Amino acid sequence: MKQIIECVPNFSEGINAETIAAIANAISSVEGVRLLNVDPGHDANRTVITFAGEPQAVVDAAFAAIKTAGQLIDMRTQKGEHPRMGATDVCPLVPVRGISMDEVVKYADLLARRVGEELQIPVYLYENSQPDNRRSNLSVIRSGEYEGFFDKINQPGWQPDYGPDEMDAKRGATVIGARNYLVAYNITLDTKSVDVAKKIAYAVRESGYKGAPGSLKFVKAIGWYMDEYNAAQVSMNLTNIEHTPVHIVFEEVRRQAQKLGANVTGSELIGLIPLSCLVEAGKYFLELEGINYNPDENFNVETAVNELKLGALGKFEVDQRVIEYILNI
Amino acid sequence: MKQIIECVPNFSEGINAETIAAIANAISSVEGVRLLNVDPGHDANRTVITFAGEPQAVVDAAFAAIKTAGQLIDMRTQKGEHPRMGATDVCPLVPVRGISMDEVVKYADLLARRVGEELQIPVYLYENSQPDNRRSNLSVIRSGEYEGFFDKINQPGWQPDYGPDEMDAKRGATVIGARNYLVAYNITLDTKSVDVAKKIAYAVRESGYKGAPGSLKFVKAIGWYMDEYNAAQVSMNLTNIEHTPVHIVFEEVRRQAQKLGANVTGSELIGLIPLSCLVEAGKYFLELEGINYNPDENFNVETAVNELKLGALGKFEVDQRVIEYILNI
Repeated sequence: MKQIIECVPNFSEGINAETIAAIANAISSVEGVRLLNVDPGHDANRTVITFAGEPQAVVDAAFAAIKTAGQLIDMRTQKGEHPRMGATDVCPLVPVRGISMDEVVKYADLLARRVGEELQIPVYLYENSQPDNRRSNLSVIRSGEYEGFFDKINQPGWQPDYGPDEMDAKRGATVIGARNYLVAYNITLDTKSVDVAKKIAYAVRESGYKGAPGSLKFVKAIGWYMDEYNAAQVSMNLTNIEHTPVHIVFEEVRRQAQKLGANVTGSELIGLIPLSCLVEAGKYFLELEGINYNPDENFNVETAVNELKLGALGKFEVDQRVIEYILNI
Repeated sequence: MKQIIECVPNFSEGINAETIAAIANAISSVEGVRLLNVDPGHDANRTVITFAGEPQAVVDAAFAAIKTAGQLIDMRTQKGEHPRMGATDVCPLVPVRGISMDEVVKYADLLARRVGEELQIPVYLYENSQPDNRRSNLSVIRSGEYEGFFDKINQPGWQPDYGPDEMDAKRGATVIGARNYLVAYNITLDTKSVDVAKKIAYAVRESGYKGAPGSLKFVKAIGWYMDEYNAAQVSMNLTNIEHTPVHIVFEEVRRQAQKLGANVTGSELIGLIPLSCLVEAGKYFLELEGINYNPDENFNVETAVNELKLGALGKFEVDQRVIEYILNI
């Protein structure tokens, strides 16, 4: 069985098609990796690319992509709604199959060292790659953003792990590390009130609010307003979908929303989700309707997605073949 | 040995990153194909995607891409410098390995039928897929473009091969067919005169000018002006690179340019080229310099590309791993 790592780099360009294509081409031209998804966001001016493959090939492809992004993106003029600190803002490596987290940490270190030494970009290690927990969280590292890093990089405790001790004006700085599989999942509300969305986020997220923990373990959440939908959303990262699956998150957010007089109108995945997670959610909503499914029967993606729609989880644009690939890779 | 087909569809969108990514994702999510290159052109408002794989998977991926393009591109508002007649303008299938042209013709027919019947898009067969040579040439089929097709589709001899006999206002009409491997190759001149570029094109292209054939077999050529380079170019399609390789084309264009008092300043490939072709060109320029290379020695891509640069073929942006992939697929 081949070892498989998934890589989900975020680049600070979501508009220029030539730049996005050049970065994607740098990835897809490496033998042994497979480009799974390119997700550009216009307003965020940010593109999330998902690819997977054998560890060394993934490192090579990530390096090629970071190099290309550094050549084509100029942070001195880059603007967008999403927080960012570099042309390649963050590049996580995720164990998918046949590989331990410790091994992925080693590959992430290999990548971070090459980016620092060969490309001369300041690199910060994060999540499982960062032993110092004062600087292992992405939002803590990125605080101050690109503009603030010219100063922050010289402050005590903020020397980069690899690369020069000086900020790169054109390419910024980059965060690299090994982390667990994560599902990005947003639930849309029938209100425009960011305040309501924030209150729901505080109530459900593990870190809670002002010391009082929230109701869902392995959930990070914020509330924001989405122009595109003209509605507030609870935007979440689910960091352990076996423990806290999407349908449980959905039901709890619905319950908390109702307490505040709001309703959920749908939900969406950003990027990919394992097939099993989708199927489990489908079965859950089928049972809610009192339908006895036969567990031996072929409960396929289509059935699951239909059940999810009935369960009001909403917009599921994820290509089922991509999901299957993630598992059958 | 697996059979391999290459597919090089052209879509009438070169600006909107979300649309281009959605089309590329539709391709890369099909198991058994590999996305090789995405080449969006802003001014042309057109994207050329290259992918390859096993025949049935290539047909499935091409179908998914054509379907997605039809959903996201609206020809009623599309504008661009490149001639076009549909959201998916043209979709060629090319035999690469272990497959005959006759077999590829069958797969192209399978694809064309599905696009016509399932998507209800008018489809014209071209090149090796079109027995009627009055309508086998792309530029002859496309003449009149999108705007002219509402009328042309009803004229004698212009009934589509598959799909409805009526133009589709949103998606336009599409050209599908099997053709030989083709290299798109442009040579840049040190003049802004399109007239000089056209005269060179007439002198070298097989079809020549006003009945007098040109000097190079299997070469199609036009002259145009490239804003990006602020210079005129001879833009060519090489349809049999074993008979007429790039370095021979380059030398002949240089000779014809000099006759007109112009010089070549460089050249560029659009899309991919087989590794062997690059290596042959490298050897040619090495020999010109009187350097005896050992044919048994490992004459690699890097050496070839360096020689090409010395030979003034200019800008070679093609990723060498992509080139190798085409051959080692």
